[in-house]
Amino acid sequence: MANVWSSGVTFHENELQLSGMPAHKLARDFGTPTFFIDEVDFRERALAWGEALNESFGDRAGHVYYAGKAFVCVEVAKWIAECGIGLDVCTGGELAVAIAANFPASKIQVHGNNKSVAEITKAIEIGVGTIVVDSLVEISRVAEAARKHGKVQAILLRLTPGIEAHTHESIATAHEDVKFGFSIASGAAWTAVLAARSHPEIELRGFHGHIGSQILSMDAFAVSADRLIELMGKFRDEFGAQLPELDLGGGYGISYLPEDEPLLPQDVLPYLANAVKTSCATYGLDIPRISIEPGRAIVGPAMFTLYEVGTTKNVVLESGANRNYISIDGGMSDNIRPALYGAEYITVLANRTSSAPLIASRVVGKHCETGDIIIRDIQLPADIAPGDLLAVPATGAYGRSMASNYNHVPRPPVVALLHGKARVILRRETEADLLGLDV
Amino acid sequence: MANVWSSGVTFHENELQLSGMPAHKLARDFGTPTFFIDEVDFRERALAWGEALNESFGDRAGHVYYAGKAFVCVEVAKWIAECGIGLDVCTGGELAVAIAANFPASKIQVHGNNKSVAEITKAIEIGVGTIVVDSLVEISRVAEAARKHGKVQAILLRLTPGIEAHTHESIATAHEDVKFGFSIASGAAWTAVLAARSHPEIELRGFHGHIGSQILSMDAFAVSADRLIELMGKFRDEFGAQLPELDLGGGYGISYLPEDEPLLPQDVLPYLANAVKTSCATYGLDIPRISIEPGRAIVGPAMFTLYEVGTTKNVVLESGANRNYISIDGGMSDNIRPALYGAEYITVLANRTSSAPLIASRVVGKHCETGDIIIRDIQLPADIAPGDLLAVPATGAYGRSMASNYNHVPRPPVVALLHGKARVILRRETEADLLGLDV
Repeated sequence: MANVWSSGVTFHENELQLSGMPAHKLARDFGTPTFFIDEVDFRERALAWGEALNESFGDRAGHVYYAGKAFVCVEVAKWIAECGIGLDVCTGGELAVAIAANFPASKIQVHGNNKSVAEITKAIEIGVGTIVVDSLVEISRVAEAARKHGKVQAILLRLTPGIEAHTHESIATAHEDVKFGFSIASGAAWTAVLAARSHPEIELRGFHGHIGSQILSMDAFAVSADRLIELMGKFRDEFGAQLPELDLGGGYGISYLPEDEPLLPQDVLPYLANAVKTSCATYGLDIPRISIEPGRAIVGPAMFTLYEVGTTKNVVLESGANRNYISIDGGMSDNIRPALYGAEYITVLANRTSSAPLIASRVVGKHCETGDIIIRDIQLPADIAPGDLLAVPATGAYGRSMASNYNHVPRPPVVALLHGKARVILRRETEADLLGLDV
Repeated sequence: MANVWSSGVTFHENELQLSGMPAHKLARDFGTPTFFIDEVDFRERALAWGEALNESFGDRAGHVYYAGKAFVCVEVAKWIAECGIGLDVCTGGELAVAIAANFPASKIQVHGNNKSVAEITKAIEIGVGTIVVDSLVEISRVAEAARKHGKVQAILLRLTPGIEAHTHESIATAHEDVKFGFSIASGAAWTAVLAARSHPEIELRGFHGHIGSQILSMDAFAVSADRLIELMGKFRDEFGAQLPELDLGGGYGISYLPEDEPLLPQDVLPYLANAVKTSCATYGLDIPRISIEPGRAIVGPAMFTLYEVGTTKNVVLESGANRNYISIDGGMSDNIRPALYGAEYITVLANRTSSAPLIASRVVGKHCETGDIIIRDIQLPADIAPGDLLAVPATGAYGRSMASNYNHVPRPPVVALLHGKARVILRRETEADLLGLDV
């Protein structure tokens, strides 16, 4: 059974504790709802991906790029830099965070299916390492911006290898009906290769493939790698030289529920190394430098959200059974994933233990919407009452990063815990902030 | 065929125009993406609901409460006040907007399934007209806060009448498995009646029922009203006096697609008046004062979003057919409804006309996510290119109000058009705003 909590979470003295700080104290000092991030756990995971890449690929190891879209703020970007790994950004806003953190530009990789001229220009201006190009018009934009700055910009081409990977299944087809990338099967990828090579301001360094999110089995990664490497073989055959880089993307699943078995770096990277080695042998290629892009796999398990219960309500169902509705002081504004993807979470009573019987419960938010549900079905102690604290684990990825002000609810802060010390790294919004855009 | 555009939108001189301002000028002056709100149309709809309520119910007309959750900012709250109708808020943040707009407190109604003590206290302190109570613990909270302020607070009880109304179907059952309200069938509603009556600081004025969102047929409203009125009959029988108020909620559907037939005030209110009259006759009651809560029905059609096309991409599908992916400079951060609810929209080329053939197209955003789709399937001119403008109508409700900073994309502004003049009422976020919470 996998652990859904970060390494610094313990349960003792009748409370959940993070880095030795008990839940009631975290709530008292920082209010609720709040995201608490375990800095030790975050750094350990970031380092583990870097080390596993190096161990598995040796001198063929490229970069681990942390996928900032999962969650990034200035402080977290600094941690990433200190862990020696790279940063994947996909908008001008994420690039602005990297710049504010003085993130080493050469270790920034820029993604996105619709990079504006301004975003591309800024990226080239500050000297980002790689731009992952996603459409033909972007090739011209990159070439033009590089020319203006007197630079040659390294790029990868994002390709769609024809793998639809979902959490519990993988489908390999020839085509993918998605906005990202150039299709290998349709010939679009080869067209892009030729277009990229036509610009002296562009250095085509290799290919990129990303097969999906929250993937819990490894086989699809090998199929994807093989198709990308096959095209690298075609490139070598055509032009007599080998492309030096291959980025296999991210999507490594984590444990949201105790029964989820996560993809861990010590398992994923040896598997990928073997798959890449096999495919390179098949196509007679040297192993290129391999990069990967974990985001959720680093930040997801490192955070939990602490909520306070506001109201409870017993609802008699049609069957005659009962359901306890537990309303917490956040909801779909700080975690849209259950409503958006049907994502499942667990929760625990964090401020005390209870010997009350477990009853069928539903944890809901405070938004004016029936679908504002954080946990649809869970057994929780019958005596949970207003003022109790609930902790929801594994909310680090796509929680705060997708947060809204729906119903004018201020977004929660992110508080980092390190060696028993807590500090705010992203502050709570205030009513003044909510009114700050009104003219 | 219903019109999905606000009254001030025209198509002439080869462009979409709002209040006589052509799309290219709107984009040039305010940038993209931007929400444009037709102030004339908004006010007309707000007034129309008020007038229809008065005409249909005469001296039994209560309030039209604009449901702020659909979209509210300080300026829009001022318009609502000027139109003489009330405002429904459901959090302290929405109440803060009302206060900033100097909204008449007596015309504010406070909703929410998890009102905190602070929110209730603030509401009573400023003298809101009505609090719609949603759980037993709230009854105590309201009584205590009212006592502290030496006031008697008017409340309604939110009841679940056992109607699950969806866009195209209505199901009447005894029970509803939702977080909102007190179930009539289970007896919870009656328990709440007794609890409310036990506090001298609370004046129980009546009941409230809300059956759902974006409802396009009227029958479920009558079933709901009948069940609420039946309980008013029981109250009269028990206590010898009649409750004076009944709030029938909102949920009136609008046209997102040209084939959607919206619920219009001139149809809804006479229908409701007839249903209420019939039920009151059945239970031997005088007609109570009737209130309603349109939100989407006022602001939804009054806004459209203007986007600029950034990239386009032809994708060959498995079937051999083609799909044109059109990437715009916003996406799921400014309109989560397609991803969240499967909501459908249309769009038009706004800055020019095209005689190019129509081709299968998909309008997608710039977020790093495959599901970032605004319009899944639409026929659009084949020559749409970067720099073109696309207008998506009917984005006024739950667009800007649910907007996020996903991928650190700044949220768009809202620009109001009135008699050919445009002014920003909610400004665009900047990179400085995005970094403003970093500590």
